Amino acid sequence: MITRKIKYGLIGASGRLGNEIKNVFAENHFELVFEYDLNGEKKSGSPEILIDCSLPEVFTKSVSIIDELKIPFIIATTGLNEEQINKLRELSQNVPVVQSYNFSLGIQVLLRLTELANEKLKDWDVEIVETHHRFKKDKPSGTAKMIRNVFKDREVNTSSLRLGNVPGEHTVSFGGLGEVLSISHSATSRRTFAEGILKSAEFVLQKKNGFFSFTDIVFGK
Amino acid sequence: MITRKIKYGLIGASGRLGNEIKNVFAENHFELVFEYDLNGEKKSGSPEILIDCSLPEVFTKSVSIIDELKIPFIIATTGLNEEQINKLRELSQNVPVVQSYNFSLGIQVLLRLTELANEKLKDWDVEIVETHHRFKKDKPSGTAKMIRNVFKDREVNTSSLRLGNVPGEHTVSFGGLGEVLSISHSATSRRTFAEGILKSAEFVLQKKNGFFSFTDIVFGK
Amino acid sequence: MITRKIKYGLIGASGRLGNEIKNVFAENHFELVFEYDLNGEKKSGSPEILIDCSLPEVFTKSVSIIDELKIPFIIATTGLNEEQINKLRELSQNVPVVQSYNFSLGIQVLLRLTELANEKLKDWDVEIVETHHRFKKDKPSGTAKMIRNVFKDREVNTSSLRLGNVPGEHTVSFGGLGEVLSISHSATSRRTFAEGILKSAEFVLQKKNGFFSFTDIVFGK
Amino acid sequence: MITRKIKYGLIGASGRLGNEIKNVFAENHFELVFEYDLNGEKKSGSPEILIDCSLPEVFTKSVSIIDELKIPFIIATTGLNEEQINKLRELSQNVPVVQSYNFSLGIQVLLRLTELANEKLKDWDVEIVETHHRFKKDKPSGTAKMIRNVFKDREVNTSSLRLGNVPGEHTVSFGGLGEVLSISHSATSRRTFAEGILKSAEFVLQKKNGFFSFTDIVFGK
Repeated sequence: MITRKIKYGLIGASGRLGNEIKNVFAENHFELVFEYDLNGEKKSGSPEILIDCSLPEVFTKSVSIIDELKIPFIIATTGLNEEQINKLRELSQNVPVVQSYNFSLGIQVLLRLTELANEKLKDWDVEIVETHHRFKKDKPSGTAKMIRNVFKDREVNTSSLRLGNVPGEHTVSFGGLGEVLSISHSATSRRTFAEGILKSAEFVLQKKNGFFSFTDIVFGK
Repeated sequence: MITRKIKYGLIGASGRLGNEIKNVFAENHFELVFEYDLNGEKKSGSPEILIDCSLPEVFTKSVSIIDELKIPFIIATTGLNEEQINKLRELSQNVPVVQSYNFSLGIQVLLRLTELANEKLKDWDVEIVETHHRFKKDKPSGTAKMIRNVFKDREVNTSSLRLGNVPGEHTVSFGGLGEVLSISHSATSRRTFAEGILKSAEFVLQKKNGFFSFTDIVFGK
Repeated sequence: MITRKIKYGLIGASGRLGNEIKNVFAENHFELVFEYDLNGEKKSGSPEILIDCSLPEVFTKSVSIIDELKIPFIIATTGLNEEQINKLRELSQNVPVVQSYNFSLGIQVLLRLTELANEKLKDWDVEIVETHHRFKKDKPSGTAKMIRNVFKDREVNTSSLRLGNVPGEHTVSFGGLGEVLSISHSATSRRTFAEGILKSAEFVLQKKNGFFSFTDIVFGK
Repeated sequence: MITRKIKYGLIGASGRLGNEIKNVFAENHFELVFEYDLNGEKKSGSPEILIDCSLPEVFTKSVSIIDELKIPFIIATTGLNEEQINKLRELSQNVPVVQSYNFSLGIQVLLRLTELANEKLKDWDVEIVETHHRFKKDKPSGTAKMIRNVFKDREVNTSSLRLGNVPGEHTVSFGGLGEVLSISHSATSRRTFAEGILKSAEFVLQKKNGFFSFTDIVFGK
């Protein structure tokens, strides 16, 4: 149990997810001392942990802060390339790093169920569908990619829908001759992601180093 | 009301839809006197009406029969090109022709509802999703194209899923800021299409010529 | 076009919907001068219009204000009884009243589509399903009742689901032999209701008296 | 591997499922020598295995045959009472018995996934929805009861929809604050159940006695 106030920094502070994080962290034992976004930088102290929920373009900025301060790092940015993932692994030798494209508990369970279904329904067809708000730039979503990874080398068709301001829906369907089995997740508010990031922050504050996914935090590593 | 037996011919007689048509027509006042499929031709009389539920490749065969016999023609083949549609219009000056990519009543209602929703939700995002059995060759489905036509010049993203032996599902979704409205149709058996073709047959047997869609038969022309 | 600030009163000001209304109205040309909720009353001026988004228990309070001030009244409370509806009709002889269980544009369109589908699919089975957050007290939802009214004297089975904090989902399904047609609406945020109430406020400020539904405001009376 | 023809008996032979069983068993190494339904009895030999896919009312008839012939027994009847289940357990001391309300592979996987999800999402709300053709008599479906059993003593709200000729759909939804996770199964044809019964027949023909569910056959006991 953490009792004192923890100072934290936030990259992407003015985005949709950034705002939810500020709300959830303020309701808990966290104090925002550093924020960075399109409007520039605000600093009132030295953060003990850094969260990045912005865009891949800002990645070097975040890395330089971790390199300098040697503090735990949580990154929720989607659309990272392989080189960037490798850089995170490198950082994780010295500090704890949590990287995930989706910080909801339900998505973690969906991934587990997909694994199990895939084992039992090996020769069935598979389809993935994701729906997000019209402002989402990357296609397919980072979460859809995580689902796809469950199927390893098998190629799985993925459809991307963009509708209004839907927070995020993912469905994976298995089709056999005579039956269809589907697993669906729907986010009804962004708060759920902010709570997963809070859970991750509490987790990494206890660690010295290591590379963690949100799956590791939910199911253990 | 038709009371005597009507002699009919069927192109694509051994396919999935062909088999349903044979069942439904046998239960009514129709007698199969000509069939044509991959296994060749069987003939026991001269058809008074011809139904084609096969593939675009067989189109010329069907046309040559109509040209010769001058009988009503119902064509359910999907994936026809513009030239083929024009040929049908030409034929329809002399005989009644019904052409549709989908002969279910529910799809006709879905198309009407889509039209109405589009009028009221002009600036909302639109997405179409269609799901069919893994054996379906064309993408997107003919029915999805019919839905797309409702939106005229507006381009509408269409996703195609192929799963097990799903008879056919179509969803059109409208997304505004804060809400999503969807209209979905799901065929639970192919029999529904065969019944729409029966209805069309009874309709064209009363006509001298003209080009009809299944919409005209359901809602009037 | 209204250009000056309009003073408004809000009953149920601290509820979920009340909060959204305060946001949306603040962004437009409205000034909150009277609020009433579980914590009591706050007053800084005389309202020119009153909005009630609370519970049937508070109905008499609202009515007494309208009786005294003779101002336009918008009521979004669900679960009103017949006597309360009659009281509203009585009030509407002197002031304009808008009463609806659902102020979203999408729901209005769903009601229209349901009407049309019902006309064409007279002998099909019908099922209504509504899903709301676990805190919702009334069952079925006021909106589900509005959908049910489309079917007049026909009894339609209605299922109520309570899940997490789902803002609100409604589906009406028509089932024939061989096909199912469904119309679904999903609210992704409560803001959409607040915007419908804003639209209604702008509408009634132009009226002298009369009883209006939100349907009248969207489709004309 | 079974190579010789197996003689089998079928109670409920003229029902929907009965017909599918006859098709699937005829395509394999089975010969129908005894059938029983509303139209009476037909017998051309002594069955080596008995399948009952009829109604609880016929239960005593089936039991008397098993008592007499001492052959393996597969029962797919839904709506059995506790006494009847106990009778089956008694019979299973002498012959192998398979009892299940649903013989589809997909439903077995759905049950496993539901178990797993329930473990991880303990404090989330749960809702079950089942949809079947209008001719289905029992409510909720036997399969819905199987899903409910996963939750042991916890009461789970279950909604039953009756629509057209839908073969069978089941959805179990978990709702947390901010997210919903759903697992859905849809039967696209009754053939899938007949194939599960075939699989069960091949399984019990190798057994001397014992009480088995279809779960035991899919996942091992």
